[in-house]
Amino acid sequence: MLIKDSLDEMKKREVSLKVIKSIIDNDGRDYLYDLTGLSGGFLATEEDLNLLETYIGPAIFEEKLQILGKEHLGGEKIFAVNRTSSGILATILTIAKEDSYVVHFLPEFPAHPSIPRSASLVGANYLEFEDINKFIANFPENTSLVVITPSTMDHKILDEEEFKTTIDLAKDKNIPVLVDDASGARLRTAIFSQKKATELGADLVVTSTDKLMMGPRGGLMAGKEDLIDEIKTKSHQFGLEAQPPSILAMVKGLENYNENDLKKSLAKKDELMDLLANDFEMFEKTPTGIMVSENNLKDEIIFSLKKDKSNFNETSLDKFSNKDFCFIWAMLLLKEEHIVTIPAVSMPGASATVRFDLAANDVDRMDIDILYKRINNSFKKLLNVLKSEKIAKNILFSFN
Amino acid sequence: MLIKDSLDEMKKREVSLKVIKSIIDNDGRDYLYDLTGLSGGFLATEEDLNLLETYIGPAIFEEKLQILGKEHLGGEKIFAVNRTSSGILATILTIAKEDSYVVHFLPEFPAHPSIPRSASLVGANYLEFEDINKFIANFPENTSLVVITPSTMDHKILDEEEFKTTIDLAKDKNIPVLVDDASGARLRTAIFSQKKATELGADLVVTSTDKLMMGPRGGLMAGKEDLIDEIKTKSHQFGLEAQPPSILAMVKGLENYNENDLKKSLAKKDELMDLLANDFEMFEKTPTGIMVSENNLKDEIIFSLKKDKSNFNETSLDKFSNKDFCFIWAMLLLKEEHIVTIPAVSMPGASATVRFDLAANDVDRMDIDILYKRINNSFKKLLNVLKSEKIAKNILFSFN
Repeated sequence: MLIKDSLDEMKKREVSLKVIKSIIDNDGRDYLYDLTGLSGGFLATEEDLNLLETYIGPAIFEEKLQILGKEHLGGEKIFAVNRTSSGILATILTIAKEDSYVVHFLPEFPAHPSIPRSASLVGANYLEFEDINKFIANFPENTSLVVITPSTMDHKILDEEEFKTTIDLAKDKNIPVLVDDASGARLRTAIFSQKKATELGADLVVTSTDKLMMGPRGGLMAGKEDLIDEIKTKSHQFGLEAQPPSILAMVKGLENYNENDLKKSLAKKDELMDLLANDFEMFEKTPTGIMVSENNLKDEIIFSLKKDKSNFNETSLDKFSNKDFCFIWAMLLLKEEHIVTIPAVSMPGASATVRFDLAANDVDRMDIDILYKRINNSFKKLLNVLKSEKIAKNILFSFN
Repeated sequence: MLIKDSLDEMKKREVSLKVIKSIIDNDGRDYLYDLTGLSGGFLATEEDLNLLETYIGPAIFEEKLQILGKEHLGGEKIFAVNRTSSGILATILTIAKEDSYVVHFLPEFPAHPSIPRSASLVGANYLEFEDINKFIANFPENTSLVVITPSTMDHKILDEEEFKTTIDLAKDKNIPVLVDDASGARLRTAIFSQKKATELGADLVVTSTDKLMMGPRGGLMAGKEDLIDEIKTKSHQFGLEAQPPSILAMVKGLENYNENDLKKSLAKKDELMDLLANDFEMFEKTPTGIMVSENNLKDEIIFSLKKDKSNFNETSLDKFSNKDFCFIWAMLLLKEEHIVTIPAVSMPGASATVRFDLAANDVDRMDIDILYKRINNSFKKLLNVLKSEKIAKNILFSFN
């Protein structure tokens, strides 16, 4: 094991920061490709910032949020919450009744835990369905809230007809509908040409402003004015609302959002995945890019080394941990290919999964074909570097 | 009534923004005195902002927060929450048990509603005491959490010995203690030379980063590492934690905080109040300044006009609403004395109370004696303006 503790992780990170600085100083920012996708989504200008410091700023951002939020989500009124989970909690606190049912419909289990957790908090019963017939057949009389998640984290999408049917069922019974459209508000509409949740009849919708758009971690709610007003009151009681700096960043994220950019990033992801699938087994898709887990990376390394040399002995890799493979590869990607991934710059304790985020701004400057070649090259170099512990250490801990 | 609806409020605000701009353009920023105290407390530099946009920023701010937070509050670990109320909710969700008691001790009722509300959410019973003997005599066996508020909104301060006694009582019974030190963390220590809550033995403390310091609306928690870790986990489940832009603003607020500045602002408040008390009945103290409510302003106007002219007829004021008095005075303060107060620049629906915040940065540039004269002058002008509806309208709605 080369990276033994937090101190080693910090050392590795310091080397990365020096490499990044030297690339920017010597070649220019355009020669560095930050594919971490971990931008804070805080796009404010200095002017915004000055405004934020005054009594006028928050009111201006709030006005803009109403306009941009309604364009994005529809509905009569917009309300910004600290997180999507905070919005779900506030809605359930406001609408769900003790001993009644909160019924959740989604295209595929598992459900996001914030929904059953919040229901449990108010003493409501929680039921979840992924089969529309079971949902219809088992719908309890005593239901106070229906939650629909039309797009899961893995981008499983509910058919629009089915979505509409579930909303209509609740509306026929006068039960309010909250749509948890975390990434769906963009994925469903931009990629699958579906309607906004409010257009399909939902009373309330909440979306995550950091998913598939350049906004901050936070939740944006829209819906019927009377319900939003009640949820707002409840949120202020428990501190669930978004604060002005986040509202500013949401406004900037919404201004910056463009359906076509999203379409392009998803098309790029598919293109890259198709290219890589010819040579590798290790890549998996993420919502906006591709990734390689520690275990997949190790398996691919062993497979490749065996292919290369049939008498290859796996014990020669024992001096490396699975995380070491990720860290060394991430450092090679940075030093040799100028591609920044999370394991190169992460703080101690972060996941070592190597992700390539294709919604990152720097992707605009890259041909997918070139990105494929760089990833491919760096993996070949990784196989080579693993032959020598000394070289591997040098890659991790030396600036030159 | 001159300000009849939201549109009139917006017009008045637009005039104010023009006046502010012309003062800054013609005389310079130094000739404008913003005493609203409504700064967003967002002191970030452009460099911070660039950092906030990257994967590295939030980790750096989090590191700084641990260091500065411990200096400010003591304790083993720091955790930033979206609001003080969010921190109270997270603590009660984590520690208070169903059917047990949450016991709240404070030097003077009323208690902040977030404590009973959060207790009710987990099905805990809530008891509150302002008398230490009753607190000791009626303390229930089945108590899962003790909350102590050692400094109320009105700056009523718990005696340090009594504070220590209440903490010790809970600790003898192995019951965790949360101190709601919203403004107290600064008021008690800087002004009353008391110890930090953690130094007095509290397991947990939460303070508001926008009270008596230039931070954002938000809560900063400190305490025992194991409890903070549990509260952090619970907060992440329900979206109660502070987001990176707020954490950055907390770091800046803590860096900027200086006990001596606070001491000075409170001394200035007392000095100003003493001067004004010779001439007026209408002023009340706020935590960091003074204020005049709509009703107090009306009473003072009537009293002054009667004093001036014994046959003064109150019906001559019927053309003005109580809010109009505040708006006209605020516009005179701005146009004639270059002092910005909230009613001059507020959005529709805001409170019309006229506040002078003496912790505002611009107070550094003002002699209290001069501030007193400006307030005095503007009130005399107000009495004069109220004689003519036409002039009053002009003050509200005309730039020149």
